[in-house]
Amino acid sequence: MKTAQRLGNLGTETSFRVAQDAAEWKARGNEVYPFHLGDLNFPMAPHIVEAMDKAIRDGKTGYCPGPGIPELRAALADDIGKRRGVTIDPAEVVVTTGGKPVITKFLQVVMDPGDGVLYPSPGFPIYESQIEYLGGNALPYRYVPTADGFAIDLDHLRASIDDKTVAIIYNDLQNPISAESTEAEREAIAAIAQEFDLWVLSDEAYFEMRYKGRSKSIAALEGMRERTVILYTFSKKFAMTGSRLGCAVAPREIAEVISTLNTNDESCTTHYVQWAGIAALQGPQDEVGRMLEVLRKRRDATCSIINSIPGMSVAVPGSTFYVFPDVTEAMEAKGIATLSEFSTEALHNTGVSFCTREHFGRRQDWEDRSYIRLAYSGIGENDITEGLGKLRDWLAQG
Amino acid sequence: MKTAQRLGNLGTETSFRVAQDAAEWKARGNEVYPFHLGDLNFPMAPHIVEAMDKAIRDGKTGYCPGPGIPELRAALADDIGKRRGVTIDPAEVVVTTGGKPVITKFLQVVMDPGDGVLYPSPGFPIYESQIEYLGGNALPYRYVPTADGFAIDLDHLRASIDDKTVAIIYNDLQNPISAESTEAEREAIAAIAQEFDLWVLSDEAYFEMRYKGRSKSIAALEGMRERTVILYTFSKKFAMTGSRLGCAVAPREIAEVISTLNTNDESCTTHYVQWAGIAALQGPQDEVGRMLEVLRKRRDATCSIINSIPGMSVAVPGSTFYVFPDVTEAMEAKGIATLSEFSTEALHNTGVSFCTREHFGRRQDWEDRSYIRLAYSGIGENDITEGLGKLRDWLAQG
Ligand SMILES: Cc1ncc(COP(=O)(O)O)c(C=O)c1O
Ligand SMILES: Cc1ncc(COP(=O)(O)O)c(C=O)c1O
Repeated sequence: MKTAQRLGNLGTETSFRVAQDAAEWKARGNEVYPFHLGDLNFPMAPHIVEAMDKAIRDGKTGYCPGPGIPELRAALADDIGKRRGVTIDPAEVVVTTGGKPVITKFLQVVMDPGDGVLYPSPGFPIYESQIEYLGGNALPYRYVPTADGFAIDLDHLRASIDDKTVAIIYNDLQNPISAESTEAEREAIAAIAQEFDLWVLSDEAYFEMRYKGRSKSIAALEGMRERTVILYTFSKKFAMTGSRLGCAVAPREIAEVISTLNTNDESCTTHYVQWAGIAALQGPQDEVGRMLEVLRKRRDATCSIINSIPGMSVAVPGSTFYVFPDVTEAMEAKGIATLSEFSTEALHNTGVSFCTREHFGRRQDWEDRSYIRLAYSGIGENDITEGLGKLRDWLAQG
Repeated sequence: MKTAQRLGNLGTETSFRVAQDAAEWKARGNEVYPFHLGDLNFPMAPHIVEAMDKAIRDGKTGYCPGPGIPELRAALADDIGKRRGVTIDPAEVVVTTGGKPVITKFLQVVMDPGDGVLYPSPGFPIYESQIEYLGGNALPYRYVPTADGFAIDLDHLRASIDDKTVAIIYNDLQNPISAESTEAEREAIAAIAQEFDLWVLSDEAYFEMRYKGRSKSIAALEGMRERTVILYTFSKKFAMTGSRLGCAVAPREIAEVISTLNTNDESCTTHYVQWAGIAALQGPQDEVGRMLEVLRKRRDATCSIINSIPGMSVAVPGSTFYVFPDVTEAMEAKGIATLSEFSTEALHNTGVSFCTREHFGRRQDWEDRSYIRLAYSGIGENDITEGLGKLRDWLAQG
């Protein structure tokens, strides 16, 4: 029987294959060091769980409004606004089942088939998948290595724009490469958005996963609020990935359409989990600080071993929980031609499991270096040291 | 700034307006009798909540697989299969955030723009909205009143099929009209699906909301499994509407695509809520029986008063928690021309709040009678008697 043609354009996150390979290798009795997970091995804070239980006891177990309960929308407007230095009306906040749904809903609202959307490559793989699934023209933009990280190739980005281009997806504090914009870069993106009248999806999933200084939002720049949709999520900051709670902050008329899409797609986000979200935002914040402290140590351990491996190098990122080392020389020294072979060999010889550039959108013609992505969010410091030590020894064998 | 053209085809559930009007009327100090809610005023069973808490304590708080955790998929395959007399493989089960997401995902998988999909009208409003939003041709089929309820007009349905028709949405135990197929009707729908090679979405949201006998699934009929996607939900049976937990049961290749759509749209369904679902399926079932006992009494109270009102009549449904009385004569006697005026006047004069036919898809040319929908799932027996008593008195005033 016939299925729909649109399915031919549907991509996915392929990183689950890495998780599966790692699980199978472990099931065969091998030690595995999991650097492939964008997940956190931290518990949800007790006061968040308690708030959820109280909500259930209070009967908050029925359907609730498609855009979210008013109390959570107000709490989000307040918290997100304060941390970004902007005023947000609760009517501009639409609660979603995690941050991810904001991607497809943003694209459904702003992009017609045939329209172009700029997106980072390498980048979160769902951007490319959803642009193409919804019939859009996916326009990748690229990063170039700098002394302390990566920078967007602004000339190349600008050259990709034509009169069918309607939006740009901007993921400052970037997954997978941990790039972070300078003020100048953020302003340049804002200027381009205004010059070409583009909508902006500002994916701020890692806004608060940072180790010094403060994050800034492109939405706070002059003239940007009215063209920007912020993707916000509880997943990373509060170790609530499995709770599926996030929101879109959008100009009011866009917020209303996303809310109608919610009503069509899933009615609402789990009612009592929304009350847990209020407790997360308004309760004690010390668990967040403690988690960041632990993550900072893991980052330092990860980067220092990586940089001690001949043929591998990485700048120490100030945010996210990923590192994206260039492994071109290490692969050459080992006589390994492809990233997928490299990761399989690393797993089988050392137990170290990671994603590569190939899991973050299609590799582009212009790429001549090879990168892997290590996440240190789901692995303790001792295992980091032990696992990456084995990786170093294996690579040293030549 | 430009938004997407597809938004012009997006409908919604308009019944929330009724809820809003009722809330406003109540806030002004008036008594309101809520018959408009498709929600249940019953708590979640304690063992279900306890299972969720245990899952959180056990660290089931991270991302989980897009198609659901294996334990829940297995429990669903077993329970849904047994109750329908079919064998279901866990690989055919895809967990979703409630039953509603199955509607849009089914249509995305089987329908191309321009294809036709048959759907019940009046019916759950999201069918019409999503068929049209996704560029399909919405083909309404109709019901005719019988001595004990409603029957599908099979000749009319058959006459609506052409060579662009790819699917039929079938909601036995129907919202809003509480229609239930005879064996012969169910077989006729199955025969039509096979003759015209149609996919079937079998919306079984109310499969277990019944007061005598056993429900049957069209998926259990010869030749139907391979063309049928079942919409299953925890919402009604377990009073878990706000939990957002359901699944699709689909032929394996369709299940795999729905799972990829999950990965794109929301990653997964709330992890610990899935463990609550296992407890719901496998734990004690006495709360379900108790709830049905209460609902049966409410149904009897509702129907007996409705049938005592001159100009109103309804057959006593054997399932769901809705009644769909014909109010044509009652409106005429009151000199009221439109359903929306009728519901507003009823609210303001009696406090009785309900949805009407207009909330369940577009009214069709062929309709010459007027119906309202009363839900007795969210209102106690005393309030039913009191509220509908007031409605009767108001209508008796002429
Ligand atoms: C860049 C980016 N955006 C969005 C998300 C979505 O996360 P969630 O749906 O859990 O909020 C992720 C998760 O890894 C991410 O890395
Ligand atoms: C016929 C029908 N299908 C599906 C649903 C979806 O319910 P849920 O998404 O809560 O499972 C409903 C809810 O009222 C319904 O009446």
